[in-house]
Amino acid sequence: MFTEYDHAHMRRALDAAREGLYTTTPNPRVGCVIARGEEVLGVGFHRRAGEPHAEVMALMDARARVGPDGIVGATAYVTLEPCNHFGRTPPCTGALREAKVARVVAAMDDPNPLVAGKGLQSLRDFGIDVRCGLLRAEAEELNRGFISRMTRGTPWVRMKIAASLDGRTALDNGVSQWITGEAARTDGHAWRARACAVLTGLGTVREDDPQLNVRLVETTRQPKRVLVDARLGVPLEARIVHTGTLVFAGALDDAAVALKADALARRDVEVVSLPDANGKVDLRAMLAELGRRGINELHVEAGEKLNGSLLREGCVDELLLYLAPCLIGPGRGMAALPALAELDGRLALDTHSVTLLADGDVRVLARVKR
Amino acid sequence: MFTEYDHAHMRRALDAAREGLYTTTPNPRVGCVIARGEEVLGVGFHRRAGEPHAEVMALMDARARVGPDGIVGATAYVTLEPCNHFGRTPPCTGALREAKVARVVAAMDDPNPLVAGKGLQSLRDFGIDVRCGLLRAEAEELNRGFISRMTRGTPWVRMKIAASLDGRTALDNGVSQWITGEAARTDGHAWRARACAVLTGLGTVREDDPQLNVRLVETTRQPKRVLVDARLGVPLEARIVHTGTLVFAGALDDAAVALKADALARRDVEVVSLPDANGKVDLRAMLAELGRRGINELHVEAGEKLNGSLLREGCVDELLLYLAPCLIGPGRGMAALPALAELDGRLALDTHSVTLLADGDVRVLARVKR
Repeated sequence: MFTEYDHAHMRRALDAAREGLYTTTPNPRVGCVIARGEEVLGVGFHRRAGEPHAEVMALMDARARVGPDGIVGATAYVTLEPCNHFGRTPPCTGALREAKVARVVAAMDDPNPLVAGKGLQSLRDFGIDVRCGLLRAEAEELNRGFISRMTRGTPWVRMKIAASLDGRTALDNGVSQWITGEAARTDGHAWRARACAVLTGLGTVREDDPQLNVRLVETTRQPKRVLVDARLGVPLEARIVHTGTLVFAGALDDAAVALKADALARRDVEVVSLPDANGKVDLRAMLAELGRRGINELHVEAGEKLNGSLLREGCVDELLLYLAPCLIGPGRGMAALPALAELDGRLALDTHSVTLLADGDVRVLARVKR
Repeated sequence: MFTEYDHAHMRRALDAAREGLYTTTPNPRVGCVIARGEEVLGVGFHRRAGEPHAEVMALMDARARVGPDGIVGATAYVTLEPCNHFGRTPPCTGALREAKVARVVAAMDDPNPLVAGKGLQSLRDFGIDVRCGLLRAEAEELNRGFISRMTRGTPWVRMKIAASLDGRTALDNGVSQWITGEAARTDGHAWRARACAVLTGLGTVREDDPQLNVRLVETTRQPKRVLVDARLGVPLEARIVHTGTLVFAGALDDAAVALKADALARRDVEVVSLPDANGKVDLRAMLAELGRRGINELHVEAGEKLNGSLLREGCVDELLLYLAPCLIGPGRGMAALPALAELDGRLALDTHSVTLLADGDVRVLARVKR
């Protein structure tokens, strides 16, 4: 059904899509290649919301190279089903029709169940030969977060943990800088950069006062900073107290807490109260709220306690572990989890990838089994 | 200095040497290729102590293929400097001379400082062109244990630990079977098989009653079983109480302990008393004793306590970690180590290799920094 050329062009479209890795949020990363047989006529990708979609960029590129007539009868390879509705830009299905491409190959359909298939159907209605599913797994991988938000209403939650090989994230006295090396920290920033938001807890703020922004890799966009802080204990001088930061609080029923909320608001920090039955932050409601706000990938860098709460409440999709080649002995663990009586109760993961980094740190990407 | 043919032949000699991986102890693993230009004339390896050395096997193989005259003027590739002394077999230097090879390429010299270089010098004295150092790192890797025993008098100590990604080797209640999957357990048996001895402690015997033999891979030789048991608390019905097992005890100054030693002796278990100042087993003295007994590679499969003692006393060269894709939370750690005030005090390792096994288990081989 798909030729070697089809594969090569789709791989190129996926590469193009990756150019938007740090910038397309809340939109998906999408790439497009216009080709005829072996020949690539144009390449495009979606850079950021409000700007043209990948298909339009690729068509523009192709027109500049071979003129409008050169595109007639060509094939468009897109990493995601073309849109069929007016958003901030006109529908891509129309652009492809006008360009008179004869064939459209999509890697995957739109994950939004309400629109999935409609773009492809519309192209078929135009008489275009439409195929879907080429390199689907790679395409899905690129937009785990967007797919999660479209299908579950919540972000894809990636929990980053740096630890020794014996699973210690810090000494008992809290010292943790630095367990992993420079390559791991830079890699960690690349994962921050692709996330829509970075989340931490009050314990980490008190202990490390992190900036939670992207510094070690280049990016034109900073992820939103999110703090879980049930009683608004965050010091006003903490570095995370910054314009645009979002703080999830529990109940604001206390005068002191309400005053603190006002003080944070004056610093352009938004406080959202989402109390659970115990007055703490309702973590699942928090994820739903982040989903409503267009957060596709949520990057968690928190301590043992919040990590444990998120894991226990089933809020985590993936662990991004950096294991440094050392043993620490007594110290902080990765996540506060309940003691088990049987191994069956462990948090089972699927190893997605293992990478040896410079400095001998080992990166393990593992997904929570569902 | 070395041609592509040289490299190819030495790689083949290394492959041949690996055929003796499970059997040559206490001798080193050695392979040999007799070649002329591109053409391989003969291949041999050392299978076990008392049987011919690799050079002799390769010469026999070559003679069978091309006759004695066919070898004249050829090159011999050996992964270790040929011996120059009468042991259980005549010196290989003489065999190479008689075969009239013109050139000998060795990967490394004999690690025994008392004989290093003498074999090569003797070949040079015979007028043979001798080169040393081709693929030295690979050759050394193959005989870490032999090199350790020859240069330090003690075995290369490899500590195997199976744990969850958060560093837990068992639940708090001791349940540990099985954290890792079948591929990891089979791989662990392959490492047992290459070891000269497998060591454990009383805690592990009491908890898991391990056989400590090789079952999951094929081998014609079983490693010696070694138990660290200061007060001879090992139950006589434990599976490790077996003909040939070696038990290191502390002081035998107690009537009950002395009686137990007799009972063990009647079961063909050898008890060696090596008390330190506290009456416990002097672990460094134990390693020296194992070195004297020809143990090249010592494979440790013990619990948190003995692992911690061995690590604290600098007795460990390498960690062989199997990390299962799961989080356990509270549970047993890899090694009982003292609490640190600063990260500088951690046990620093060099990552040697990282391998993703079936079942998603991650194997990390890491060496203690010296």
